[in-house]
Parts: sequence; structure tokens; C-alpha cells
Amino acid sequence: MTDSQLFAPDVQQTLDLIGIFVFSLSGGLLAVRKNLDIFGIAVLAEVAALGGGVFRDLIIGAPPAAFQNRGYFFTPLVATVVVFFLHPEVERINNAVLLRAARGRGVSCGPARPTPTASALAGGAGVARGLVTRAGGGVVRDVLVNELPSLLRWDRALYAVPALTGGAITAVLVSTHHLNAYTGTFAGLVAFTVRMLALRYDWRAPRAWHRESASSGSES
Amino acid sequence: MTDSQLFAPDVQQTLDLIGIFVFSLSGGLLAVRKNLDIFGIAVLAEVAALGGGVFRDLIIGAPPAAFQNRGYFFTPLVATVVVFFLHPEVERINNAVLLRAARGRGVSCGPARPTPTASALAGGAGVARGLVTRAGGGVVRDVLVNELPSLLRWDRALYAVPALTGGAITAVLVSTHHLNAYTGTFAGLVAFTVRMLALRYDWRAPRAWHRESASSGSES
Amino acid sequence: MTDSQLFAPDVQQTLDLIGIFVFSLSGGLLAVRKNLDIFGIAVLAEVAALGGGVFRDLIIGAPPAAFQNRGYFFTPLVATVVVFFLHPEVERINNAVLLRAARGRGVSCGPARPTPTASALAGGAGVARGLVTRAGGGVVRDVLVNELPSLLRWDRALYAVPALTGGAITAVLVSTHHLNAYTGTFAGLVAFTVRMLALRYDWRAPRAWHRESASSGSES
Repeated sequence: MTDSQLFAPDVQQTLDLIGIFVFSLSGGLLAVRKNLDIFGIAVLAEVAALGGGVFRDLIIGAPPAAFQNRGYFFTPLVATVVVFFLHPEVERINNAVLLRAARGRGVSCGPARPTPTASALAGGAGVARGLVTRAGGGVVRDVLVNELPSLLRWDRALYAVPALTGGAITAVLVSTHHLNAYTGTFAGLVAFTVRMLALRYDWRAPRAWHRESASSGSES
Repeated sequence: MTDSQLFAPDVQQTLDLIGIFVFSLSGGLLAVRKNLDIFGIAVLAEVAALGGGVFRDLIIGAPPAAFQNRGYFFTPLVATVVVFFLHPEVERINNAVLLRAARGRGVSCGPARPTPTASALAGGAGVARGLVTRAGGGVVRDVLVNELPSLLRWDRALYAVPALTGGAITAVLVSTHHLNAYTGTFAGLVAFTVRMLALRYDWRAPRAWHRESASSGSES
Repeated sequence: MTDSQLFAPDVQQTLDLIGIFVFSLSGGLLAVRKNLDIFGIAVLAEVAALGGGVFRDLIIGAPPAAFQNRGYFFTPLVATVVVFFLHPEVERINNAVLLRAARGRGVSCGPARPTPTASALAGGAGVARGLVTRAGGGVVRDVLVNELPSLLRWDRALYAVPALTGGAITAVLVSTHHLNAYTGTFAGLVAFTVRMLALRYDWRAPRAWHRESASSGSES
């Protein structure tokens, strides 16, 4: 466990819980928008917060932390109660650029600890696994209520580039054995900044060339 | 294995297969409603019956029982044939209050045996895992055909409260070392009764406060 | 490892990568049709190509090959670039009968190697697991963008029968210890031929009897 944590356990745990809480709010708010009842709010809050981490743990063969850590499990329930009573206020705060940027940033927070990403990098596809972890909860959340996942929507500001930037810096740090709490935080800040700029200036990723032909050729 | 079964193996197996059959019918009927062919009926029957159990087994790291037990696998195929030829009759029976209550009840039946729930309770989030097991198949079934999962629908009678009631009683029984075939059946009967009442009197769970603001604020 | 490969490792790897590339194209094209950006194309290409194999590996408890093999991971990215610049041409080629038949054929190609199917057959439900592997990527791909999975659509030509034919022949070969590179190729060719005939003559699977009653009885 010594080298599996970038931060002191207490700090790491607090960062994790804050991240889980923020992700939970996004799930709970989507449930309110979809007119679901309080159990639906709780389900989407849990799924948004923990879905990506559970999937990551299944892939690396570890027992899912989400089912073993009481804090991981109860934090989304707290978010559920908050959303249930105060969702208009939460919605307003949730749309603040700072929080949206935080949700997209590249390093440690929420159930996506940097370590699995780091160790996975040795296997070559670690960046992809990191993305799965981070984006997984949001994708499951959206799929459950039949929405096109935000991750895939063209009309949302750039999401993948900041995450990939953070992931790439982390990858370089790992391979040069320089990954620690400070450099890890730095990678996170770079990703955060790129995401802030993307939100502020509404950067978009390019779509396929010659789309006019595609739009006519539907497979139905 | 001795303490992993509340009932004698034969009884447990029979209860499991009955539960799987009932869940399979719900999947098959949804497939018919969606106008799918016989293979679609079989896929939804299998998924509805076994999806939750497979997910539970993945989480606890056990080889999925659904892929190892011939009975688990072939029972949904029997349900497929029944639905294929007799779906109007099955639809009528399936909507009977008794069966709908049985599908929602809180303890043992279908691939969701009480033991994993029980042992998971030591980990704190066992009730959630029990819910995942029980509701998982239905959720995957609904997501596959682009329906909002019944579990999340506000306009369906109360589903979570009976299941949580059963789960809570089971949790108390486990922690006081009183869980056995009789008390387990009792917990199931309580959950079943609550579910019957919810269906009969059309109980609903509350939705978020101040929804009027939410309905106008669509994220589109 | 000696008996886990029907073909020489190099040949197997090449066949795998070709299969992954073909499946990736189907994911990328769907992304273009859905107007997603280049990251959406990449995500659907990866999911379509590797989703089924990841799910299979989770079920059999093996570390997912898709996350460990660089070739498996980068091939869909190559397909992404190809689709991004040339999708009208790719769309045309992709709809050719030969390729569509190849995607549906019953044996080895893509991340679905025959061995897990073969070893799973001992457990009785191996054909189902083989189907999951092969169809899984396509199902996840379609669910992500809120489409009814092709696998379940009645208005698509017969898909399951060729796959089941190939699976059944393989099962017989395994149980009689005659499965090798030649007989495995033969099983694949039979499945391929049946699929070609199904596409050419537009064979469909039957839907449930008495559907008129079902279409009126919607559950809404």
C-alpha cells in the first residue's frame, strides 16, 4: 500500500469523498431533471459517483472499493438528501465553471485514484483505463435514463483533451519515476486549467469530414 | 457451502429456478411488446433473469453461476418458448398483483440468493449489493431496448421500500446470528406484504421539492 | 498456452487485429452517423471492437486482453483516423455483403478467440458465452448512443442462426476432440456461408404469435 497512494491516506480519503460528492450531485440533478423519485435520485447519485470506480476495480480484478468503504457508499446518499431538498440551488452551483472543470480534471479525485492509472501505464493502455474510470460513472448515469452520454456529445465543451493532457503528463512522470504528491497535483492543475479554458472559450473537438454525405446516408 | 445456503440445496435450487422463470417471462414479454423476434425474446429473457446475478458474481469475484449451471441457462429458454406461443395469456398472468409483488420481494428467489447479501452486510454496503443483484437484470433488460428502467420510474408503485425493508430485517438477523430458513422466509414475507400493499394502494415515493423550477431548467 | 490457440500465434494475432479493425469501423461509422466528434468516434470504435472481449474476460476472471495488448488498443484508433477522413468510402465498403457476413460469422476473429468458447462448453452454457463475446461490443456500442441493438432488431437479416450454427459445430468438434485449425476454419466457413445466404435472401427470424394483441396492450 505504501506506493499505492500519492497522498497521505487521510488527505487521499478526503479528496476521494469530495470527488464522490461532486459526482453524486451530477447524478442526483439528472434524476430530478428526469422527474424521478427519491430512490431514483439515490440510484443515479450512487451510479454517477461509483460506477467508474467499480468498473475499474472489476477490470483490475480488485474487490470494488465502492462496496467496501462505508464513506464511498454513504456520501452519495448525503448528496441525495441535499439534492432532494435544495436542487435549484445545487443546480446553479453545479453549473459553475469551476465545478464543471473539476469534474473533468485529469488526476486523483473521486474513486479514480491515480495509482491504478499509473500501474496500468506499464501495460500500455493505461490512459484508456484512466478515462474509463473517470468517465464511466457519467456514462452509466446517462445511459440509465436514455440520454446520449455527455462524454460523447459534440455540443459539450472539450472534455477528453484536458483528461488526456493530465493522463499524458502522469504517464511521463510515472515512466521517469517522478510521480509524487507534488507532481501529481501539478498534472491535475494543468488538466484543470485546460478544461477551464475549454469551458470559457467553448472549444469543440472536430467532427468527421464530409459529414453532409453521412447525414443523408442513414442506415435506419 | 454449508453456511452459504439458507435452505436445503434442493429447495434452494427449486426456488432459484422458479424465480429465474418469473424474471425471464418479464424479459420475454418486453421483447414481444418491442416487436423483437424469437432471438430477441431469448436474449431479453436471459438478461432479465441472469443479469443481476452475473453482475453480483463479478463484483464478489466468483465465477458467474449463470454460466455454470445448466438449469440457470435453460430455464429462460423454456420461458422464451412459452412467451413465443402464449404471450397474451402470459401477459395477463404476469400483470397479476401476486406475481408483480413476488418479483419485488426482498429475500431469496431468482439468482439472488440471500447469502451474498448476508456476507456482504459485514462490508457495510450489503443492502446496496442486494438491490443491485435483484434489480440488475431488470435494469439491463430495460436499457437494452431503450426504456427508462422500471426501477427508476416514478409512475410505478413503490419498489425500493419493500426490498429495503426485507434487506434491513435480514441485516438485523445476520448481525444477531439469527438468520436461518425460517427467519429468512419471514423477512421475505414482510417484504412481500409491503410490496402487495404498495401495489394495491398505489403508493409512490416522493419526488424532489420545488420541481417546477427543475422542469423549466432543462439542460438540453 | 499451447492448447489455447487454434492457430500459430502470429496468424492468430493477425486474424484478431483484422477482426478488431472491422468491428472498430462499425463503431466509428455509427459515431459519424450520430454526429459525434473525433473522440466520440474513438470511443465507439474502441467499445465496438473490444467491449465483447472485455466482458468475456471479466466473466472468466482473466485480466482483459484489451487492456494489456497494445495492438488491441491502438487498432481502433487507426480505424478512427480512417473513418474521420474517409467515412463515406468506408460506409460504402462496410455495407458490402462480404464484410457484413464476416462480422456475423461464427468462429475466431476479433477479440473473440475460440478457446474460451471451447473451454466454456464444458460448463454447458458456452454457446451463450461465445455469443456474448461476439455480440457484446456491438450491443454496448448501440446502447451508448441510444439505439436498439442491431442484435435485437427484427428488421435486420438473421444474425443468431449463423453464429449458433458455427458454435454448435465447434461444440461437437470440442467434445469429440477434433477441434484444430482446419476444422475450426471449416466451422467458421459454414457460419459465414449461412450468414451470406441470410443477407442475400433477407431471411428473418419469426416473431411471437398473436402479436396483434400485444401491440394493442402497451404498458406505457
